Amino acid sequence: MKRSLIAIQDFSVEELQELMDTANDIIANPAKYSELCRGKKIATLFFEPSTRTRLSFEAAMLELGGAVIGFSEAQSSSAAKGESVADTAKVISCYADIIAMRHPKEGAPLVAAMNASIPVINAGDGGHNHPTQTLADLLTIYREKGHLGNLTVGICGDLKFGRTVHSLIAALSRYEGVRFVLISPEELKLPSYVKKEILKAKGIPYVQTTDLEAVMPELDILYMTRVQRERFFNEEDYLRLKDSYILTPDRLYNAKTDLCIMHPLPRVNEISVAIDDDPRACYFKQVLYGKYMRMALILKLLKEAGTL
Amino acid sequence: MKRSLIAIQDFSVEELQELMDTANDIIANPAKYSELCRGKKIATLFFEPSTRTRLSFEAAMLELGGAVIGFSEAQSSSAAKGESVADTAKVISCYADIIAMRHPKEGAPLVAAMNASIPVINAGDGGHNHPTQTLADLLTIYREKGHLGNLTVGICGDLKFGRTVHSLIAALSRYEGVRFVLISPEELKLPSYVKKEILKAKGIPYVQTTDLEAVMPELDILYMTRVQRERFFNEEDYLRLKDSYILTPDRLYNAKTDLCIMHPLPRVNEISVAIDDDPRACYFKQVLYGKYMRMALILKLLKEAGTL
Amino acid sequence: MKRSLIAIQDFSVEELQELMDTANDIIANPAKYSELCRGKKIATLFFEPSTRTRLSFEAAMLELGGAVIGFSEAQSSSAAKGESVADTAKVISCYADIIAMRHPKEGAPLVAAMNASIPVINAGDGGHNHPTQTLADLLTIYREKGHLGNLTVGICGDLKFGRTVHSLIAALSRYEGVRFVLISPEELKLPSYVKKEILKAKGIPYVQTTDLEAVMPELDILYMTRVQRERFFNEEDYLRLKDSYILTPDRLYNAKTDLCIMHPLPRVNEISVAIDDDPRACYFKQVLYGKYMRMALILKLLKEAGTL
Repeated sequence: MKRSLIAIQDFSVEELQELMDTANDIIANPAKYSELCRGKKIATLFFEPSTRTRLSFEAAMLELGGAVIGFSEAQSSSAAKGESVADTAKVISCYADIIAMRHPKEGAPLVAAMNASIPVINAGDGGHNHPTQTLADLLTIYREKGHLGNLTVGICGDLKFGRTVHSLIAALSRYEGVRFVLISPEELKLPSYVKKEILKAKGIPYVQTTDLEAVMPELDILYMTRVQRERFFNEEDYLRLKDSYILTPDRLYNAKTDLCIMHPLPRVNEISVAIDDDPRACYFKQVLYGKYMRMALILKLLKEAGTL
Repeated sequence: MKRSLIAIQDFSVEELQELMDTANDIIANPAKYSELCRGKKIATLFFEPSTRTRLSFEAAMLELGGAVIGFSEAQSSSAAKGESVADTAKVISCYADIIAMRHPKEGAPLVAAMNASIPVINAGDGGHNHPTQTLADLLTIYREKGHLGNLTVGICGDLKFGRTVHSLIAALSRYEGVRFVLISPEELKLPSYVKKEILKAKGIPYVQTTDLEAVMPELDILYMTRVQRERFFNEEDYLRLKDSYILTPDRLYNAKTDLCIMHPLPRVNEISVAIDDDPRACYFKQVLYGKYMRMALILKLLKEAGTL
Repeated sequence: MKRSLIAIQDFSVEELQELMDTANDIIANPAKYSELCRGKKIATLFFEPSTRTRLSFEAAMLELGGAVIGFSEAQSSSAAKGESVADTAKVISCYADIIAMRHPKEGAPLVAAMNASIPVINAGDGGHNHPTQTLADLLTIYREKGHLGNLTVGICGDLKFGRTVHSLIAALSRYEGVRFVLISPEELKLPSYVKKEILKAKGIPYVQTTDLEAVMPELDILYMTRVQRERFFNEEDYLRLKDSYILTPDRLYNAKTDLCIMHPLPRVNEISVAIDDDPRACYFKQVLYGKYMRMALILKLLKEAGTL
């Protein structure tokens, strides 16, 4: 099995730093990288649609001078004819140098990696992992704050089902001095197993609250996520709660002046567009940094595979 | 907001001439242009399918040495998750150098242009505008006739809903000596506001008729469009009228020998395939010229954006 | 009409050898070929999905330095608006240098070839032809056995509807000393017209059997195909027969040590995954060889068209 990225924990802190260093160098000297993957191909195998993530991988490979093949939804794929993920991985290994796979089933990218003869990047598997989103998040924090430790990180919204949230907590828990402020309705609190396996196991300080306004002044980072109507047991609770977790300019009155506001996108209405021009809004920078981290990741995996 | 093309009126007559000059030079010296966009990307964001238009943009960018990312229908896009056009434009600005957007809603490409940090080309928005089709039409007339003024232009078929027709009339109305012959069933006549705002406002001569045969001898250009069954209030009228607006070889008996027959394609049966080999049939040339005008347009907008 | 590949019989034995020689040279010296199609484009027009075939063509063109445009299913295409295949072929001729077309209707690629001004490759038309699969099959046998004649070729499964089977029989029938062993349930026997027009007409020896185990020791090649439930008149027959045509490791006990096991993929369960690591399993090699034959084919057709 070639070195792959299935979960963010697959990479050591040193390796994450290496990726961020590469990404920063790409940002500073893009021309140095623009032909490195000439003649190489990424296969974007998206068994469910995710335009933003897919286009990020494709832009990343193209900016390295490489090319793209793939599909953007399952009905266009051989899977519709009953082919297994293992077989698809073996077939695609004949066509491309690296795979980015999105799949509705948890574990599918791991199965692909175990059967492919080329590296596989998990581009999101069900509610499980989405490690390249976490790479984007880490570079955003690193560039905005200059470091990844010694931060009070607020995470707001759906902490129960949001896979990006769990990956981000796992990743940041490896840095010194991180403290989490978990802001959510009761129904969408961080699952116990995440608290137990990560936060408590490592002795990471955290607080849980339903009140965004009360904790706003403490936050260095505010990571917003979407509160989806379908997560609630009854409509009443949803209507009562939904506005509490929408970020508007007036809710920032007591926030730090160097707060960094993040969101994995797409947003629906969790962050008012009136905040877009606030210098603390970092969610579109996240998109850009995500592309650079994917470039760094492609380079790292192709080098470890001996392809570059 | 970067210089974009939302409606054909966004460009002056001088700018249209500049695009046609560039297109003619590309046709004469393709090799001169084949690497100009190396390292640049167009994003083809097609929220509704339009294969011909999408592939024309993609071929155009590839023939300039650039690359392509994008999607071909809305269900593959983040829009399915409720993302706004404004957010999509901001995100895609992180991935590409220029956008070509097709959208079922009028005005969507303008919203995109107002939010993107890169140029946006309207590749068709609802029944509203389709300016790159008009660019193709103009180059076709210019190359076939040697000039864009002093022409009798027949437009036949659905003049009420056909967006390409309204754009073409708006564009040609800016040239000296153009006269329009508007041929359609009563039900599908050119809307009053187009006559008032463009033809009457500028004192452009025009006649309206239901009889293609009677006016055929006068025409320098015959622009055919599709008469769609669903535009008629009752089936009887449709059946009575549909054959009057189908071009067959025998209907050309009194046409000029240098008539230029055009159609925006796809055609269903508005022009008999028996006409395809007639030297007056220009509708496949239109396709080719559309590609060259899109190449010229991409170059112009990327230069104005400072990307080239 | 430009030289195209609609059915495997379009190419002489000498031309097939030429393609295999080119493919072998590409495998030996890929760098020699990596820029030959710079500036050229293949249009992959897939009116029905077939990911594996489409990606094979796209990878082939990219490895020659060329580029790709196209669509992966009919609903994204102008066909949904009623455009004829003939018109699509004329339009695409303005955008690309060669077409690979998959279409649910038999004969559609031929219609395209008759109307295009560029070469057309049939990438599968209904139950009719799929000649590039046969090219993959031929190179696999040639590389595994060193020659295409003097072989006992077992073909197992659905011999009635499997188009790859009919093409393969037609192709191999042109080599000396080939003998066929046709293994299938009664319901799915090779159609009489194939036996009459090819096997009997040329005096090719063949046997028909329902018993895979009994004939296994004789086989040099075992070409497996899928037995589809919907091909059977009643469920009972299907359930009774389906397991007889599934290849498992224990069924290979009396097979030759240099047997070559093939399958056009995707497989569902016709070949047990336990066989994948057996050195006699050649079905993933087939995928790789298919790419190289498509590269050789693109080069040949572009050269004959005067494009290269």
